[in-house]
Amino acid sequence: MNIEMIEAAAGRLAGHLRPTPLLRSPFLDEIAGRPVFVKPECLQHTGSFKFRGAWSALSALPPGTAGVIAYSSGNHAQGVALAAKMLGLAAVIVMPADAPALKIANTRAFGAEVVLYDRHAESREEIGDAIAAARGLVLVKPYDDPQVIAGQGTIGLEIAAEAAALGVSGAEVLVPCGGGGMTAGIATALAARAPGLRVRPCEPEGFDDTARSLASGARLGNAPEARSICDAIVTPMPGALTFPILKSHCGPGLVVSDAEALAAMRHAMLRLKITPEPGGAVALAAALFRGEALGDAPVIAVVSGGNADPETLLAALSSAG
Amino acid sequence: MNIEMIEAAAGRLAGHLRPTPLLRSPFLDEIAGRPVFVKPECLQHTGSFKFRGAWSALSALPPGTAGVIAYSSGNHAQGVALAAKMLGLAAVIVMPADAPALKIANTRAFGAEVVLYDRHAESREEIGDAIAAARGLVLVKPYDDPQVIAGQGTIGLEIAAEAAALGVSGAEVLVPCGGGGMTAGIATALAARAPGLRVRPCEPEGFDDTARSLASGARLGNAPEARSICDAIVTPMPGALTFPILKSHCGPGLVVSDAEALAAMRHAMLRLKITPEPGGAVALAAALFRGEALGDAPVIAVVSGGNADPETLLAALSSAG
Repeated sequence: MNIEMIEAAAGRLAGHLRPTPLLRSPFLDEIAGRPVFVKPECLQHTGSFKFRGAWSALSALPPGTAGVIAYSSGNHAQGVALAAKMLGLAAVIVMPADAPALKIANTRAFGAEVVLYDRHAESREEIGDAIAAARGLVLVKPYDDPQVIAGQGTIGLEIAAEAAALGVSGAEVLVPCGGGGMTAGIATALAARAPGLRVRPCEPEGFDDTARSLASGARLGNAPEARSICDAIVTPMPGALTFPILKSHCGPGLVVSDAEALAAMRHAMLRLKITPEPGGAVALAAALFRGEALGDAPVIAVVSGGNADPETLLAALSSAG
Repeated sequence: MNIEMIEAAAGRLAGHLRPTPLLRSPFLDEIAGRPVFVKPECLQHTGSFKFRGAWSALSALPPGTAGVIAYSSGNHAQGVALAAKMLGLAAVIVMPADAPALKIANTRAFGAEVVLYDRHAESREEIGDAIAAARGLVLVKPYDDPQVIAGQGTIGLEIAAEAAALGVSGAEVLVPCGGGGMTAGIATALAARAPGLRVRPCEPEGFDDTARSLASGARLGNAPEARSICDAIVTPMPGALTFPILKSHCGPGLVVSDAEALAAMRHAMLRLKITPEPGGAVALAAALFRGEALGDAPVIAVVSGGNADPETLLAALSSAG
């Protein structure tokens, strides 16, 4: 994975993305004590950045590919489903039968065939492998795939161009981090195209595997009993492909509480007029509430997704932070 | 006011606007039974389209103008305040002393000097005229000003270009309508640049003065006891400058209930990841819930603003529609 792959992915994505121009509010600047720019990927197709990586991977498949398969009950599923539909490929998403009905409905609405399995009695890998073999489908992983990382990296190319247009040559770029695909892609793009912009992975408490791994130099996992409302980024540990990239270009990581993520959601709704999901709001939360860990530079925070349910939005609006 | 003025305003606005690309969700299409595209002007600077008209008017003032004055407790005040700040002009906003503290704070945050008056004992016009005369300030009206209408009309130029890029040559363009500045501007732009796109003004029940005026052919007002949560567009009657333009290009008008506006807000939050205010959501409400009044064509609905308070967003999320 390198800058040439990211630029090639940007070429394949041209004309198929929603523009997500940087947003800003004087009220957020005041809370943070510095300029805060927000990259609103919640406005991207399917409500998250995952569409970019899915399109990048699917559009790089050899001609004649029958279709794709993915395991996901979340944003990656929706990104793969829509990209496949737009590219005329079949998409099968393997989801647990007890996944929220809304997420199953969302994935179907974007055109995918959903295969449900009993996660207490069956293995999704075995089911997926059998379907893939029988129908000639290609597995698309959520982050440990070079073309997926390259697609997410197109956010970095846009941030580089937008920051330059604003006259911002030095900034901390805060990125919500699960498996690290988006963080690795953005960091690679900025290292090549805007080296004054430094990427800081942001995670929720209990799922700070990337922050701890960067501090220790080796991949570490999270405690099995950890829980967070930031469901989009509660991955077990940094990816095998993503972590070496993160080590080269990122850090130190920032960690926020669930309460801070909810408060950031509320500020985003009231001040930027966007509705992040909790995991999508952790970078904005770090920008607003963890300024002591940042230098004096402006901050660019990625809001990575907005697929929250009504109860979560209500909780955020009622939050006191 | 004509297409040349709108294109000149677009030239003056170039580089100073936030892009507001059309949004879409398969869930909204399903409710409406047709493609629904949304123009999210809630993402514009200051959270509403009003920044466009304010910039258009202020940037057309003769060199040496000392500053501007406006009467408004709402979106126009914030648009004038920020445009003046960016253009280096003084801005005085005359607001009632009992206006919501949040709106006064917002207007000050965008750089304006706020002059409060007692609306039970004083006349804002007398106070404003005295300040304007003493300090050489120019009054900027919220809609009955040709340069303001031209600025709002730049939304129409963007819709024409975006619809063409999508291959949409025929559509109904639904626009929230108060005094009619935005509606008149968009209608003028589309009549010249995309005549297959027809503008339909949208209003809340009790404030359907434009719909009734268009039906009767003469300007009519609203009942003094009328109330609506759609505070951004509860104007007394169509403007003297705007109504002749509306008569030439628009209609028939569409009318929605407050409950439908709240339900449209909820769908926008959950499906498009944006937070409209009630008045900003009436066109989307008409697209979703008043399809029987529309033909078979796709709909493009303008979401004109997002300056809702937390209580209103909570009410929308809890709405049953």
